[in-house]
Amino acid sequence: MKATRLFALRNLFHARTPCRANSVLSQEPSGPTMKTTIPGPRSQQFTHELEKTQNALSTIFVLDVDKSVGNYAVDIDGNVMLDVYGQIASLPLGYNHPAIQKVFQDPKNLSQLVNRPALGVHPTPQFIKQIDQTLLPIAPKGLEYVQPMMCGSCSNENALKAICIWYATKQRGGKPFTDEELTSSMINKAPGCPQVSIMSFEGAFHGRTFGALSCTHSKPIHKLDIPSFDWPIAPFPRYKYPLQEHERENKKEDGRCLARIEELFHEYKSKNSPVAGVIVEPIQSEGGDYHGSPAFFQRLQKITKANGAGLLIDEVQTGLGATGKFWAYEHFNLPEPPDVVAFSKKFQTGGYFAKADFQPKQPYRIFNTWMGEPAKLLVVDATLKTVKAENLVENTRKTGDILLKGLEDISRKHSKLIQNVRGRGTFCAFDMPDASTRDKFIGQMRNAGIQMGTCGDVTVRFRPALIFADRHAHIVLDKMNEVAKKF
Amino acid sequence: MKATRLFALRNLFHARTPCRANSVLSQEPSGPTMKTTIPGPRSQQFTHELEKTQNALSTIFVLDVDKSVGNYAVDIDGNVMLDVYGQIASLPLGYNHPAIQKVFQDPKNLSQLVNRPALGVHPTPQFIKQIDQTLLPIAPKGLEYVQPMMCGSCSNENALKAICIWYATKQRGGKPFTDEELTSSMINKAPGCPQVSIMSFEGAFHGRTFGALSCTHSKPIHKLDIPSFDWPIAPFPRYKYPLQEHERENKKEDGRCLARIEELFHEYKSKNSPVAGVIVEPIQSEGGDYHGSPAFFQRLQKITKANGAGLLIDEVQTGLGATGKFWAYEHFNLPEPPDVVAFSKKFQTGGYFAKADFQPKQPYRIFNTWMGEPAKLLVVDATLKTVKAENLVENTRKTGDILLKGLEDISRKHSKLIQNVRGRGTFCAFDMPDASTRDKFIGQMRNAGIQMGTCGDVTVRFRPALIFADRHAHIVLDKMNEVAKKF
Repeated sequence: MKATRLFALRNLFHARTPCRANSVLSQEPSGPTMKTTIPGPRSQQFTHELEKTQNALSTIFVLDVDKSVGNYAVDIDGNVMLDVYGQIASLPLGYNHPAIQKVFQDPKNLSQLVNRPALGVHPTPQFIKQIDQTLLPIAPKGLEYVQPMMCGSCSNENALKAICIWYATKQRGGKPFTDEELTSSMINKAPGCPQVSIMSFEGAFHGRTFGALSCTHSKPIHKLDIPSFDWPIAPFPRYKYPLQEHERENKKEDGRCLARIEELFHEYKSKNSPVAGVIVEPIQSEGGDYHGSPAFFQRLQKITKANGAGLLIDEVQTGLGATGKFWAYEHFNLPEPPDVVAFSKKFQTGGYFAKADFQPKQPYRIFNTWMGEPAKLLVVDATLKTVKAENLVENTRKTGDILLKGLEDISRKHSKLIQNVRGRGTFCAFDMPDASTRDKFIGQMRNAGIQMGTCGDVTVRFRPALIFADRHAHIVLDKMNEVAKKF
Repeated sequence: MKATRLFALRNLFHARTPCRANSVLSQEPSGPTMKTTIPGPRSQQFTHELEKTQNALSTIFVLDVDKSVGNYAVDIDGNVMLDVYGQIASLPLGYNHPAIQKVFQDPKNLSQLVNRPALGVHPTPQFIKQIDQTLLPIAPKGLEYVQPMMCGSCSNENALKAICIWYATKQRGGKPFTDEELTSSMINKAPGCPQVSIMSFEGAFHGRTFGALSCTHSKPIHKLDIPSFDWPIAPFPRYKYPLQEHERENKKEDGRCLARIEELFHEYKSKNSPVAGVIVEPIQSEGGDYHGSPAFFQRLQKITKANGAGLLIDEVQTGLGATGKFWAYEHFNLPEPPDVVAFSKKFQTGGYFAKADFQPKQPYRIFNTWMGEPAKLLVVDATLKTVKAENLVENTRKTGDILLKGLEDISRKHSKLIQNVRGRGTFCAFDMPDASTRDKFIGQMRNAGIQMGTCGDVTVRFRPALIFADRHAHIVLDKMNEVAKKF
């Protein structure tokens, strides 16, 4: 126990000394160390405090941010866990990475951290440079416009607004707003607020504000009691695994979904609620790690375009390298770029990239007080430089291969327990026979020192940081083998 | 010119030296210094850069965050302006305040700045303390639940969701969700996603995401081409000024609005879209600084309660002291606390306070990846401590009196130009004869060294930081007199 404390103190000291960026791995422990079951007594005590004022039923454990390092989350009971959930897929470089520490330690950054400008009226020279030198270099090809936002929901909401504005602008054919549009918009009525719709998918998750929530269909508890737009909901492929053994069925499944998508375009057009845009995740993440084939996405893009709608790829959970490509949709070889791509999570802030046509011509249409935050873009800049310098997207692809192959091995040995292994990069998942088995299994894994996350009804998802390396994959696989054997 | 540069450099140095919190005022210049008209050549050049990738039509000038200090915004042409717009009402302590600098300079805070946890699953001990010791002490009386969020829009969206959940829970009377509710919710249909509605007001502004935008009715350009919920929109009082000369008419105006509010409750009930909640600003801010009387708000609360709906006061722009009380609704002597109070802007983050009944019993109903941010709450904590130590709410009340009286004097002298002077604290405003006169006037004021903001169609709004003092008020009034005289 004393040794661990000493180790933690040493980390604390090292973590504050500027050093080579990837040295965060050298500060990591050699593996998990568990002192209590999860949640431990101190976590329980703090959660009890929290319960006085908050709904704390979703709390897993109370995090010690001082002691957590690299891929290892440390809780306030001193349990050191290898974290493959990564704060719900939102940690790009793990805990206490020196590159991010430097952002806050550099006195040159102080005024940008302290002063949060209203960028829509008072941009700063630093922000203008950040757009040009931080964000545009990672723009999906052909998407030359970027709009910073704050979180995943507001990135999607504003991306959907940009699509609705683009759609109406096209319909208007260069004519100015009519008086009827101007007056009806103020009372929420058509033609000013038109009855256009957004198509989304069964099992999708795009956020929890009213617009994004109308496109979210992963779990009832997210949606119950909240009024919703009557927008079309299409089926998303549900494949059989292993893919190579079910090619014919899975191709048929693509066909089923695509046929229904075409139908829905027509149905909603004849209901006078034409589809202005389609929002889709490259991998349905919160909904249960459901993948669509490149052929499915190619055809979806074609149908969307043929129907005059815009295609929004929601890369909030998949973006920034986790799938072994910077953007997950790059796996699909789309004939042309998607129209809009939304991001958040690993960026520690949000926003969207779009084709130039999707930028409103008038000011104040996509607007809010802050329009993002230069301080957050300092973090994005440091993150992207580290990702590039350390080749972390390639790292994720390679480590992902090891992880996926290992999971397939375990699945062959424990085929009743670990099913439908799938993934791209380290963005891997498997199913278990039912929710209670799954929840029991990840509880045991946590007590064995591996912090995992769930999604969908019966799925376990991997969302490690981009610094997740071969040795971490082997630790996870060994622990999974142990837990599965005894299960 | 050299002297100003020297001054700016001196500021830069001082600003980084820890010192007595209110010393930021001692670092300020004695008044504005203008070198160019606004926007100056460098601002224009940077804006031109920005235009390549952004809609930059709303840009006023490019801000130099290094050189700005206290109440003075400095642009990149070296113009030093007294800022009474405060980054769209979002600056609590002006620019480069030592108390906020200290947050980022204190090594104890580093791990909280660097690591952004998913608070819904992994709260930190620091966050639990922040809820208890930073946020709850400023809770509106009777509102014992606080939910941190990220911005004004998502604070209102989630507050509205909490109201919808509360309303449905009440209707359900303790029964569990039905199968029909569970399945229908997944396809956006009633009864799972019920057709309840939210009442808002003509001229209101509550944000720009789909739910908040359905409650916003200040300007068509915010709403055009975006689908909207068909929710009831009530009139908000439009008073005649000075108030004491129009008591009878204004009382009649209250009556007109209240009668329509009651009608709308009945209309939407019989349309099978009952009103679950009412959202209202204590002062309609973006819409044109329209005030409602205490009697209006008292009666609004009574009608809302009688109809079984929840009352959400949107204090995003008014909260944190600007009106001479911590929360603006405290001016209204409501018979009981409002149900929910949303905040953002001067908090530099967002959230809402609510009565305990408005906290969902199940997890994941009000939830997102981050659920706020401990790093932002460090800033809130430093801000609130400064506000308390320097008695800034009282300062705002006193300075506001000087500002308001001064504006009334100018209005008497220039009664055709400056009309309907009104305000609480420094949250003051006046109208001008038309939009083009108003825009020309604030352009001249800016060139005279006063950075002002507009709202509504013909209104000028004051939104200085809480450190705005008597001498700043006198500078603004003197410049207004000069500009008005020559106008």
